[in-house]
Amino acid sequence: MKIFSDTKLTDAALRALLEGADPHELVFSSQLSSSVLAKGAPDPGLAQAQIAFGQPDADAVLASKELQWVHLTSAGYTRYDTAEFRAAATERGLVLTNSSAVYAEACAEHALSFMLAQARHLPTALASRAESGSPEWLGLRHSSALLKGQRAIIFGYGAIAARLAAMLAPFHMDVSAVRRRARGDESVRIVTVEACAEELGEADHVINILPENAASTRFFSAHRFDQVKAGAVFYNIGRGATVDQEALAAALRSGRLAAAWLDVTTPEPLPPDHPLWQLPNCFITPHTAGGQQGEPETLVRHFLENLRRFEAGVELHDRVV
Amino acid sequence: MKIFSDTKLTDAALRALLEGADPHELVFSSQLSSSVLAKGAPDPGLAQAQIAFGQPDADAVLASKELQWVHLTSAGYTRYDTAEFRAAATERGLVLTNSSAVYAEACAEHALSFMLAQARHLPTALASRAESGSPEWLGLRHSSALLKGQRAIIFGYGAIAARLAAMLAPFHMDVSAVRRRARGDESVRIVTVEACAEELGEADHVINILPENAASTRFFSAHRFDQVKAGAVFYNIGRGATVDQEALAAALRSGRLAAAWLDVTTPEPLPPDHPLWQLPNCFITPHTAGGQQGEPETLVRHFLENLRRFEAGVELHDRVV
Repeated sequence: MKIFSDTKLTDAALRALLEGADPHELVFSSQLSSSVLAKGAPDPGLAQAQIAFGQPDADAVLASKELQWVHLTSAGYTRYDTAEFRAAATERGLVLTNSSAVYAEACAEHALSFMLAQARHLPTALASRAESGSPEWLGLRHSSALLKGQRAIIFGYGAIAARLAAMLAPFHMDVSAVRRRARGDESVRIVTVEACAEELGEADHVINILPENAASTRFFSAHRFDQVKAGAVFYNIGRGATVDQEALAAALRSGRLAAAWLDVTTPEPLPPDHPLWQLPNCFITPHTAGGQQGEPETLVRHFLENLRRFEAGVELHDRVV
Repeated sequence: MKIFSDTKLTDAALRALLEGADPHELVFSSQLSSSVLAKGAPDPGLAQAQIAFGQPDADAVLASKELQWVHLTSAGYTRYDTAEFRAAATERGLVLTNSSAVYAEACAEHALSFMLAQARHLPTALASRAESGSPEWLGLRHSSALLKGQRAIIFGYGAIAARLAAMLAPFHMDVSAVRRRARGDESVRIVTVEACAEELGEADHVINILPENAASTRFFSAHRFDQVKAGAVFYNIGRGATVDQEALAAALRSGRLAAAWLDVTTPEPLPPDHPLWQLPNCFITPHTAGGQQGEPETLVRHFLENLRRFEAGVELHDRVV
């Protein structure tokens, strides 16, 4: 078979891919991307391949007569998460898998790092040289918080949320999650979108891991932020487009939200004059939640595991379509 | 009985103390301290009390003929952790308890916030506006780390370490701890001080929660930092005096240690020209690890629980001498 790839890899990852893909033929795009977030360029190489690994153009995927399986190097799959793509893929038996298993651990650890940095007031505490007993010191001491016993609601229950829920277990928190359809395999209480307003009014931590699609665009609207408990903290490690950023800024300014911690925004990065950069209670990392040492090698290993399953005709890991 | 207190409380905490201590008589020091870290001033009120709550002067405690029980408002008890104090207290049946249960959760959460902030490179990531795919972004993505699968060694196994070990369990780390004497109730592998060099050479995270006493002063010496695995991270949420700070600065400069995260130093705060302030891989919070919302009220509640036990002749919580 021919395997098309548009992913720019490190030498070590490329070697692992070449070895592991043997005896199949690898066809590389003329325009390789080193970011798993960027959309791949249309490439004639794709048309002859049976398998694609990377971020192939969605239209080109559907136009190809040969493609049987596409494995994305990201956890997000917005470009393919449309009714049209799903219908066309189902009709011709095309399978889409993502790299969810590669990113779940890193994204969950990133989310917990946000929650603990907020609880322990790290940005303020790391900048402080307060003396024991001073008003500044007492203010910091008595405003620092514990996750223990608090309430959290997670929007979007998948591999990341499952790992985060496991990491929150030792804190004896009340954790619930919002999912399109409950499947019965969840480790926390599942709430429907329709019924989430009440939970939102009681949660100390609102954690957004929603994927981006037609239904989730600007899900966190002014109306939604009005439902949030006063003084709650908002986190986004999903996709920036699921948030109305003007409404978010307003909620941060009014104090309705105590703080926001964002790994994703729209666009990325935000323009230099964007109000979210100016707000002292808004903390932004540049879409690094999935980052990890050995990331390209791990992506290749995960693809090769699925390649072995594809060869054997076994159900693939992380299938999304 | 008479209860002496030198702790400056919030109104709510004072009310709870007055109500809970009834029918005993409360005697307040003329010099109240609002910091649980400060040494109390000698006070004639102590001499007539049977119980002391706060940070009473150690010599005055031993000079008192009436005192039966001292309950400290801190987890640390350095001023009383001497052979002389222990011998004199044992001879006259004086009991010393601390507020370990109040601070264990906050200190363990603070330690984990340090570990995750380091793994996810939060200080760099929060200051970055890197664009996806740029060299800066790829550097951040591929240097961010996972706690999962890493090794940690905790120096000082008590209530804080037990909580931290529970919080680390979901990360499937290899965690060991160094304790003066193993008691068999530990949740992680216990190593003796004599045998710790080998473990130190393999740990990615070296977490110092040692109490300060004659045996622990400058325990983390140049010799000890030489035993650490290259690229390890050092954390201190115990006491500053257990670290040779010049040796620490040298290990941070040479890159032997990738970073240090300190909640305690000696003195506190460090003088403005201290080298540890200048090092880009040294992160310092001003002894706020134990801080928490409602801290004074929680201290009083913990003392009153022990007061009920003292009245009933039951073994006290958090007894240290």
